Amino acid sequence: MRLIVPLQAVVQGRGGLVLGSLIPCALFYLLQLYLRRNRPSSSSSPPTSSASASDLVELATIPRSLSRGLLSPRGAGGPARLSSRGVAVARDDDNPYYVGLKRCPEDPYHPSSNPRGFLQLGLAENLLTLDLIRDWLVSNWKESLLLDEEEEFSIRGLATYQPYDGLMELKMAIAEFMGQIMQESVLFNPSQIVLTGGATPAVEILSFCLADPGNAFLVPSPYYPGWDRDIKWRTGIELIPVPCRSTNNFSISIASLERAYNQAKKRGVKVRAVLVSNPSNPVGNLIDRDKLYDLLEFVSEKNIHLISDEIFAGSIYGSDKFVSVAEIVDAESFDRSRVHIVYGLSKDLSVPGFRVGVIYSYNEIVLAAASKLARFSSISAPTQRLLVSMLSDRKFISEYLIINRDRLQNMHALFVDGLKQLGIKCASSSGGLYCWADMSKFIQSYSEKGELKLWEKLLNVAKINVTPGSSCHCIEHGWFRCCFTTLEEKDIPIVIERIRRITESNLVS
Amino acid sequence: MRLIVPLQAVVQGRGGLVLGSLIPCALFYLLQLYLRRNRPSSSSSPPTSSASASDLVELATIPRSLSRGLLSPRGAGGPARLSSRGVAVARDDDNPYYVGLKRCPEDPYHPSSNPRGFLQLGLAENLLTLDLIRDWLVSNWKESLLLDEEEEFSIRGLATYQPYDGLMELKMAIAEFMGQIMQESVLFNPSQIVLTGGATPAVEILSFCLADPGNAFLVPSPYYPGWDRDIKWRTGIELIPVPCRSTNNFSISIASLERAYNQAKKRGVKVRAVLVSNPSNPVGNLIDRDKLYDLLEFVSEKNIHLISDEIFAGSIYGSDKFVSVAEIVDAESFDRSRVHIVYGLSKDLSVPGFRVGVIYSYNEIVLAAASKLARFSSISAPTQRLLVSMLSDRKFISEYLIINRDRLQNMHALFVDGLKQLGIKCASSSGGLYCWADMSKFIQSYSEKGELKLWEKLLNVAKINVTPGSSCHCIEHGWFRCCFTTLEEKDIPIVIERIRRITESNLVS
Repeated sequence: MRLIVPLQAVVQGRGGLVLGSLIPCALFYLLQLYLRRNRPSSSSSPPTSSASASDLVELATIPRSLSRGLLSPRGAGGPARLSSRGVAVARDDDNPYYVGLKRCPEDPYHPSSNPRGFLQLGLAENLLTLDLIRDWLVSNWKESLLLDEEEEFSIRGLATYQPYDGLMELKMAIAEFMGQIMQESVLFNPSQIVLTGGATPAVEILSFCLADPGNAFLVPSPYYPGWDRDIKWRTGIELIPVPCRSTNNFSISIASLERAYNQAKKRGVKVRAVLVSNPSNPVGNLIDRDKLYDLLEFVSEKNIHLISDEIFAGSIYGSDKFVSVAEIVDAESFDRSRVHIVYGLSKDLSVPGFRVGVIYSYNEIVLAAASKLARFSSISAPTQRLLVSMLSDRKFISEYLIINRDRLQNMHALFVDGLKQLGIKCASSSGGLYCWADMSKFIQSYSEKGELKLWEKLLNVAKINVTPGSSCHCIEHGWFRCCFTTLEEKDIPIVIERIRRITESNLVS
Repeated sequence: MRLIVPLQAVVQGRGGLVLGSLIPCALFYLLQLYLRRNRPSSSSSPPTSSASASDLVELATIPRSLSRGLLSPRGAGGPARLSSRGVAVARDDDNPYYVGLKRCPEDPYHPSSNPRGFLQLGLAENLLTLDLIRDWLVSNWKESLLLDEEEEFSIRGLATYQPYDGLMELKMAIAEFMGQIMQESVLFNPSQIVLTGGATPAVEILSFCLADPGNAFLVPSPYYPGWDRDIKWRTGIELIPVPCRSTNNFSISIASLERAYNQAKKRGVKVRAVLVSNPSNPVGNLIDRDKLYDLLEFVSEKNIHLISDEIFAGSIYGSDKFVSVAEIVDAESFDRSRVHIVYGLSKDLSVPGFRVGVIYSYNEIVLAAASKLARFSSISAPTQRLLVSMLSDRKFISEYLIINRDRLQNMHALFVDGLKQLGIKCASSSGGLYCWADMSKFIQSYSEKGELKLWEKLLNVAKINVTPGSSCHCIEHGWFRCCFTTLEEKDIPIVIERIRRITESNLVS
């Protein structure tokens, strides 16, 4: 149909029927000629009409790492064909981000029992305040789960079917928690919340609602490596990295967004949204108020959506104040229906194992669709009841947030200082569970290859897993995301010493 | 490409270059002519080339029930466009199955406080043995959650990131539970299990792995109405109902499968799998051993997959013995890599609120892909720990299964007897939480319309929600699925009396 419409314009314009038919005739002639000339010489017979082009593509994408036997597509007794997307997901294994994540649990560091094991700095998980969660659970566990509002035992609220998109009680508790985190600068409305089993399905469900296969999102890079799986695997949406640069501390550039938008348009690709993380993952810097205005103006002008992933909003250690996009749209007259926030309890409350994600949207159709799509990713009711109880304990939450911030601040300072001693500078940051470290002077060739060589040495020799910038689509080489909240204070000197051995040897050689 | 490939065949066959170009030339001429003649007379100017055909399609599918204001697609300040799939999901509201499900909780029946409220017979939820689950939880709750194998408190196993596809301990416990349910006739291998947040995402994830957009599954009908959402909403897979008939108690017909397969082939649609439920939902009959052989032979011959949804395998009340497809492939030399089972704990263990689904596959690539796709639908760790403990209590589980079977048997007999008194016969059945009732003699016109009129009367006048056969793609009119496990014994006379009033008035008028 894409071909027909411009041709139609020719016909209905100056062309006329004859010209409108001769042009495709000529085009087909040239195409046939091209296909004839480029036919593979090895195949003696032409492909039969029953084997479509998509079949051939499918055959070419057989996973290398899996046994060939299972994959032969047809013929008597051969295994049945799988989907090309299924095969692609099965084989998608070589991103260093995931390779590193997998390696550590196989041989994890322990100060006494396995002092030579792997240290995990690749996972943005906050273990600093796990003791607080633990203590709360020990005291409140049973009561929080088994009693309903009337203090009666309620098995129906636990075991039976509940709304797929989350209990209203939990939506209310989470709306309040989000407000607390943002220091009451925003009032979140529980009816704008859809709950999902983690932020991963939250961002995927939102993407399904906003864009069709072949559409694209603009994503300032470096960006969180998980998005390539979260969004691209099943939705068919393209992510277009829009480079940010170290010269202005990886701040988002509207000019770059504009350029990327126009380039996509030229390719015939429809951009449906800008997707940002605030605080940035992996850099840790915040999007300031002015830039939020600029972003909102940009998406308004292009008439597209803005998705703001604010999952680290409560993990702020710097002096800058976090500003949610919700604060801006609440105060100003922007069309809110294009604004969507992703949140979750995995980072700020240190309970990733609970799998709680949040879609916060101002768009009633998105909310209607997302709450139905939550059937594919609901939170189990016992976990929801537990969290209602925990989040409603305002005293506990207030204390937790203060202590968490203190510990984050302390660990960040210690870790960044340690790196500094090795001559490694970090980007200026205020939030997140990581720092964004510039090790470019230790890579032997200024290229992705050079960066990955250093990453491999850190992983295999020093047994330190960090995330290379290339996994985050960073345009500059030699940057690494290092999560420090998976460590204890006493681990820092060990980490720094292990890195030192690699960087020193790299400088000498 | 679909157009090009057959044309190419012409060129490379007897046609030659000139003919291969003249044919599309002629086709385009006729198309232009057609478009000219059928141009809407109201539009004075032709569509600009910037508005593609897909845009126009998208505009035509705006949801009727949602405010129009939010949907106007572009123009200065207009709302940003949503995906066509998102809009379609938001508007997908008129299936009687879902309409009925929604109505009941708004005004639910209670014997004393709301005796005129709705009675829910539309939801396959087992409340008969909820007391057993409750009692177990009261006694074992705290211990089951907070202690790990060494009887030490383990917050790390609860709050931190866990494998997306489920804890190995839970896979082992569920494999054993599935074996117990099938009376040890099958040994399930935990490493062939991927756990998901409910059976709904299990069947969706499996579908993503087996078929690409535009491919199809053959589904003997009547089938579970949820599959139209579970499978069609996001995967782009077509479900082709293959009619079963009352003359042989809705048993699956291989001849009908063959016919449907050939018809799909003629349309150019690739069939990738046969999807069955065993025990059948909504009929409740079992697939016997011979028919399982026939099905396996059929899918082997066509070189496609077999998905067997066995979520009601442990909810058997009849004298027939349930046979899992796993039992057949374990014993025989069928190619197992094409066989996949869907299971879950929502029905047989009465814990739908826990959201636990199972993919059991013999295909290593499907397992590799599905375990990665489980990132979109993980079970929260506290729920997993709890279930490990509950399922490992073999004494409890054995007793539970016996009592559950007794209560199911009793309720089924009472309910079917009640319907019999009204002259309503049910299909012969052995499992499930429902019966499949023939009310065709009470519909005033033998059509879908007539069936839905009776359904509406039952819902709005009698305040009884049942599922009409048309929601299950039943080819015969007047059948209804009635779930009886949401009732208490003393509710049955009330339900029967309410139905009687409708059916009597329908016979008279």
